Amino acid sequence: MKDSLKHFLEPESIAIVGASRTSDNPGYLILRNLKDFGFSGRIYPINPEGGEILGIKTYRSIKELAGGVDLVVSMVPANKTLQVLAECAARGIKAVLLVQAGFSEAHLEGKKLENEVAQRAFSMGIRVIGPNAAGFVNTSNNLVLHSYPINFLKRGEVAFIAQTSQFCCHVMEFMFSSLHYGVSKSVDLGNKCDIDDADILEYLEDDPDTRVIAIHMKTIKDSRRFIDACRKVSKKKPIIVFKTGRTEDGIKTAISHTGAMRMDDVMLTNALKQARIIRAMDMDEFLDLAKVLRSPTIPKGNRVGVITFSGGIGSMMADACGQYGLKLASFSNRTIERIKPTLSSSARVVNPIDCWAAASPLDISEFYRVAVDALMSDDNIDMIIVSFVLNENFWYPDFHHIFKDQKFPFEKPMVGWGIGGDKAVRKGTAILEDMGVQVFASPERAVRAIHALSMFHNQTENL
Amino acid sequence: MKDSLKHFLEPESIAIVGASRTSDNPGYLILRNLKDFGFSGRIYPINPEGGEILGIKTYRSIKELAGGVDLVVSMVPANKTLQVLAECAARGIKAVLLVQAGFSEAHLEGKKLENEVAQRAFSMGIRVIGPNAAGFVNTSNNLVLHSYPINFLKRGEVAFIAQTSQFCCHVMEFMFSSLHYGVSKSVDLGNKCDIDDADILEYLEDDPDTRVIAIHMKTIKDSRRFIDACRKVSKKKPIIVFKTGRTEDGIKTAISHTGAMRMDDVMLTNALKQARIIRAMDMDEFLDLAKVLRSPTIPKGNRVGVITFSGGIGSMMADACGQYGLKLASFSNRTIERIKPTLSSSARVVNPIDCWAAASPLDISEFYRVAVDALMSDDNIDMIIVSFVLNENFWYPDFHHIFKDQKFPFEKPMVGWGIGGDKAVRKGTAILEDMGVQVFASPERAVRAIHALSMFHNQTENL
Repeated sequence: MKDSLKHFLEPESIAIVGASRTSDNPGYLILRNLKDFGFSGRIYPINPEGGEILGIKTYRSIKELAGGVDLVVSMVPANKTLQVLAECAARGIKAVLLVQAGFSEAHLEGKKLENEVAQRAFSMGIRVIGPNAAGFVNTSNNLVLHSYPINFLKRGEVAFIAQTSQFCCHVMEFMFSSLHYGVSKSVDLGNKCDIDDADILEYLEDDPDTRVIAIHMKTIKDSRRFIDACRKVSKKKPIIVFKTGRTEDGIKTAISHTGAMRMDDVMLTNALKQARIIRAMDMDEFLDLAKVLRSPTIPKGNRVGVITFSGGIGSMMADACGQYGLKLASFSNRTIERIKPTLSSSARVVNPIDCWAAASPLDISEFYRVAVDALMSDDNIDMIIVSFVLNENFWYPDFHHIFKDQKFPFEKPMVGWGIGGDKAVRKGTAILEDMGVQVFASPERAVRAIHALSMFHNQTENL
Repeated sequence: MKDSLKHFLEPESIAIVGASRTSDNPGYLILRNLKDFGFSGRIYPINPEGGEILGIKTYRSIKELAGGVDLVVSMVPANKTLQVLAECAARGIKAVLLVQAGFSEAHLEGKKLENEVAQRAFSMGIRVIGPNAAGFVNTSNNLVLHSYPINFLKRGEVAFIAQTSQFCCHVMEFMFSSLHYGVSKSVDLGNKCDIDDADILEYLEDDPDTRVIAIHMKTIKDSRRFIDACRKVSKKKPIIVFKTGRTEDGIKTAISHTGAMRMDDVMLTNALKQARIIRAMDMDEFLDLAKVLRSPTIPKGNRVGVITFSGGIGSMMADACGQYGLKLASFSNRTIERIKPTLSSSARVVNPIDCWAAASPLDISEFYRVAVDALMSDDNIDMIIVSFVLNENFWYPDFHHIFKDQKFPFEKPMVGWGIGGDKAVRKGTAILEDMGVQVFASPERAVRAIHALSMFHNQTENL
């Protein structure tokens, strides 16, 4: 199977059946993405008119192609799919991406057609992604085979698998720009008539560029096989699953869009848990957890050191820690001794540290620096949450000073959060992320993220 | 009590004891805020040196003042507070804001001093906000009496009460700029040695500019009185309480910063519920619910119409609706008939509506317009969630076209959500908010918000 997926994600040549000259046509966009992002393999647009599209020689049919092709993308209407498959088989092509909709997600005839496509492909030894799949991305080889316009990419450690074209494409942009992380691979599996999440998991198990696997799914094709694959791969890499169709209405909606069968949701939750899969219950959790699990270091336990600028925020963080079963660490004597000399008279060295109350106003960044460094080398602490006021007319953290003693990757996980006006928060978030501090959008989301990190660690330890 | 709070929130004259010439001193900032935001009453800076500060004649002491003063702000160190109170009493002053820290939140002597301050103030007929209170804002009369620099204000329907200076000030900026709503009043109550949340509630009950009351608290001074006030005021206005100190660690942290007594959290939850108070469990929920409850219309029931651009998003929305006990509405025949002619061939009119699958690509904004209008006039639907792709190189909603048939306030509540790159999302959010569609940051948060709206309505109906 791994080899089959190589045809899709690591092809040396790709033919696009249904390539188009019309600029808002998916058959044009997919070609433009391939070119714009610098795919280095051979590209064969196929269009009955021949000629050139985007400066690339265009063939009239698959038959016309001179050599072999690793991957064929079919952009033609659903009812021409069987014909495309036959032509692929005749040329010994082993991998086909079916972009078009009009199959099981649309109506009963579509479902019949999809079954026939799956059977014929199987009998001809062709593996299929789709139908109704927008495409995929591999940032390791600059392969952007996507029928939606992709505005920008960010390379990263997360493999992002989705089952809905729009979600896949627009959530990626949100992830890259608002959440500050990128993908190794991104695959829309569409209706999963052949290749499904289990296949992708097997491929990703040894992918050196993937450290975290994040799967959005509406339906599971073969749940036993999926859970088996999860069990195996989760020993090496964290897997987060965001499966929609949890409630009655959700199930109805999920099924109506993919034509798939329903599955008992409670059963699924239990199976995922046993396979050490983290199940996200909403979109924020899904994207936050995929983000935090990229951490290059893992916590040795569940003891948290919290650095804040306000007693109120400290109290929120402490509540959230308690809710998730994380412990507020007791500082070591060495930490207390290091921090004490920088304190204002009435302050105490307690966890959470309130830098604002503790430091003299002129030295808050210096106080943060001492606190971060002391907590980073305190053996009583497994992970750190650091939070900031972000307000340029009041006080703005001197991040370079605060983190000047820290080298990325940090010795232990450290996540951040900041509050203030929109502009100030965006600026601070970008600086922190550049320094390797993962930023989350609220105190409680920062705690939830760091909790997931410690959970995955503890589960893996108890294998 | 209402009259007492008028001295604070609607003063005609304010004296600032401890006014300063040093630009980063709170005794300067508080004066600058008063001036910058255009407070129209009389301002009397008090500083032993006299002269002028910010062009305002400055007095050497309270004794020097010629006429009466509605409100005195004390910025002097904790140990001079009793003296300030005595001077106030001598001049018949009835209201004092104590900004300085160094009381019960700091140490045992501070607690003793705070008790003495409270007793002396009571015996002299002086009402006190604080100590350790950063100040307050009343956007109805441009009163910004705040010892933190306030960069910008947004007038709105939410009264925002907090118990932590930093939280109060920086969360406001976040609220104004990222969440797109404003405040009627904002009060930091600090250590609550006298005036507490119950007093504020009584004042806000009839405040014509306040439609929603959002209270952040670490400690409750008199829980019976607070609950009684909640019970009374929640008949008129929704109240959201975000009480930290829920867990063991959270309680310890909350108490260490205010010196207050702990209270059984489960007992509180029940009491709040009985008083029809919505208890927020995290910061996002607190701020989202305060936002949504501003809605000028209230839902007649719990039936939701969902407009999306993707089956996957529809499924998430449906899940969240199921989780919160909201119903996906069945469209009326009239709605189905209105939408049908604009459908692409294979699409069905179901809730959630997938505009992308349903409309022909060129007419998506027109399809949205028809769908919004049909759902708005469908008696089977109590509230609407509308979601968008936000991607300028792909498709960007023509919001003015989509909402051209709708007049604000809408006939029923409508909230929104959009996904895409950071810039596109911020742009779309601003346009939608301008049109009166409240935007939330994820599909599930949009559902949670609209659920809170229907909950408050149902509770109130069953009084």
